[in-house]
Amino acid sequence: MHSKFNIVAPDQGLAAALQHKIDQKTKPLGALGQLEQVAKKLGLIQQRLDPQFGQPHLLVFAGDHGAAKAGVSAFPQDVTWQMVENFLAGGAAINVFARQADMHLAVIDAGVAHDFGKRSGLINAKVAPGTANYLEQPAMTVEQCATAIERGAEISRNLFANGCNIVGFGEMGIGNTAAASLITHCLTGVSLADCVGRGTGLDDAGLVRKQGLLEQALGRYRAAGGNNEPLAVLAEFGGFEIAMMVGAMLAAAEAKMVLLIDGFIVSSAALTAATLFPALADYCVFCHRSAEPGHQAQLRALQAEPLLDLGLRLGEGTGAALAYPLVQAAANFLNEMASFESAGVSDKA
Amino acid sequence: MHSKFNIVAPDQGLAAALQHKIDQKTKPLGALGQLEQVAKKLGLIQQRLDPQFGQPHLLVFAGDHGAAKAGVSAFPQDVTWQMVENFLAGGAAINVFARQADMHLAVIDAGVAHDFGKRSGLINAKVAPGTANYLEQPAMTVEQCATAIERGAEISRNLFANGCNIVGFGEMGIGNTAAASLITHCLTGVSLADCVGRGTGLDDAGLVRKQGLLEQALGRYRAAGGNNEPLAVLAEFGGFEIAMMVGAMLAAAEAKMVLLIDGFIVSSAALTAATLFPALADYCVFCHRSAEPGHQAQLRALQAEPLLDLGLRLGEGTGAALAYPLVQAAANFLNEMASFESAGVSDKA
Repeated sequence: MHSKFNIVAPDQGLAAALQHKIDQKTKPLGALGQLEQVAKKLGLIQQRLDPQFGQPHLLVFAGDHGAAKAGVSAFPQDVTWQMVENFLAGGAAINVFARQADMHLAVIDAGVAHDFGKRSGLINAKVAPGTANYLEQPAMTVEQCATAIERGAEISRNLFANGCNIVGFGEMGIGNTAAASLITHCLTGVSLADCVGRGTGLDDAGLVRKQGLLEQALGRYRAAGGNNEPLAVLAEFGGFEIAMMVGAMLAAAEAKMVLLIDGFIVSSAALTAATLFPALADYCVFCHRSAEPGHQAQLRALQAEPLLDLGLRLGEGTGAALAYPLVQAAANFLNEMASFESAGVSDKA
Repeated sequence: MHSKFNIVAPDQGLAAALQHKIDQKTKPLGALGQLEQVAKKLGLIQQRLDPQFGQPHLLVFAGDHGAAKAGVSAFPQDVTWQMVENFLAGGAAINVFARQADMHLAVIDAGVAHDFGKRSGLINAKVAPGTANYLEQPAMTVEQCATAIERGAEISRNLFANGCNIVGFGEMGIGNTAAASLITHCLTGVSLADCVGRGTGLDDAGLVRKQGLLEQALGRYRAAGGNNEPLAVLAEFGGFEIAMMVGAMLAAAEAKMVLLIDGFIVSSAALTAATLFPALADYCVFCHRSAEPGHQAQLRALQAEPLLDLGLRLGEGTGAALAYPLVQAAANFLNEMASFESAGVSDKA
């Protein structure tokens, strides 16, 4: 399956010209900090000195997790579909922030254990009504995993065909911090304990219980001969929303779109995709540092320095939508600021 | 002079209702991190559960520093007026970011050593064409300092009278990181060495020279019996743009406006104002963590945790304009998100 993607690192031929353009702007060298790095990245991805955004989208992938019923989350599984309804009604945080940022919001049913029927604003890409419980068996079959990836890729290809060149990723799925923790442990080698957090708000006892359950799931996988190959890990622990994001990210990077990466769950998809194709990270802007401990392990593995650090731990793509204005600011200063010469400002003493 | 202001901490009567409203939103408790604290602050400042912004402004105060010619900056003094021209022509970073954020930009000549004539977009509040050199004498007289504060206050009062309830602060003045370092040292007690940075880009030798000059200025002040009284320190080290911001901040807080505080220089004005009236800090949103070392001392003294940490060190109010969308997001989630009850989402297991 993964030979289907062809992801090439951006050509570096423009790097010097971009840096020169940045350095000629009427500001001290480097004074716009991380925004200068983002500006350069945008220019390299788009292969132009004046990056432009078209049809910005925020995709929220939703899926249910068989393990949720075993007690890995503070909230009941029904909250997944209830929150999808909230997205469709426009009342969730991601609705508010996407509206403010003028991003098109699309919600994808990757595998929610609920029948929504045909609904405006909802893309039905359901692989199955929730994954299996990885405490007992693999969350999905190899075929289901491939289907999820392919359907995700198709979504990005459709966006690209319609003029979109920047896409933010978000997710909803009760139990998916647990899946992200297992994936992160397997792909980074960081201890499981350092990859597990409180998710939506477990107390101390709940956290201990979650850690115990995840150790147990991992033990079962290892006993069955499970290795750290990204697609095997992804199928083993799920969920469908994470696998579908992997496919959407790979196709988006192949199309040379800019990928806005949200927090811990979205980064588990980015980590999986980047382990398969390291060049994927060159297309990613990491939007925020999650309060989940496992996110730090992911960011280190991806050598990523996110734009925001606001103690967010909501998911849905909220960090991506909140960071998008900063990404726009990076393009705007590159495109609109005067140079020392054009403004008649003295450069250095 | 400072008895002219009456700054009262926001009434805390709404605090519980605001927290309840935040906690009923469809998200895990606390999951929006710092945005939740900002939302609560906005509600308390405006004394309403649905804070609204009117006529957002970004004020850039410009002034020249007598000490600039002594070599405390990497750039020549002429860059101050040249950059004011750049602001008026729309080509500076703050123009780009204020446009993007849909904030009205106003440039104030607080004391630039240049005659601009009558110009659209420029408020002429010039106290004098640059301060005196504090290596030899006080930067300004007590009367000049009072004039600067009063003119700043008048600007905020005019904005308020025209429906503005949120104002970002920015500045331009070659040499003003040096003034901010001296003020910060005097008002926080942190060693001068820990308050001095590279400003617009001094090299190692330049930094040593700057530190030496500022030690010398401080020595002259102490020898003349100078104390740490905020207005005395402000008059001694300037500049006019900092003093005018102090007045503008005090009048804005008095009018219960929201103050968006930029980086190191703007925070030196906020620190001065908050040392006079501690309640001022309750009206401030600290927008970004500057790369200047002295900013850390200010933030600790003000017990402030800024929203952005992007390695910015440009000034002009760029951090305030870049953070404004986050402040809007805080108000928007409070005003627009559904509650668990209204959305039909299960709260807890």
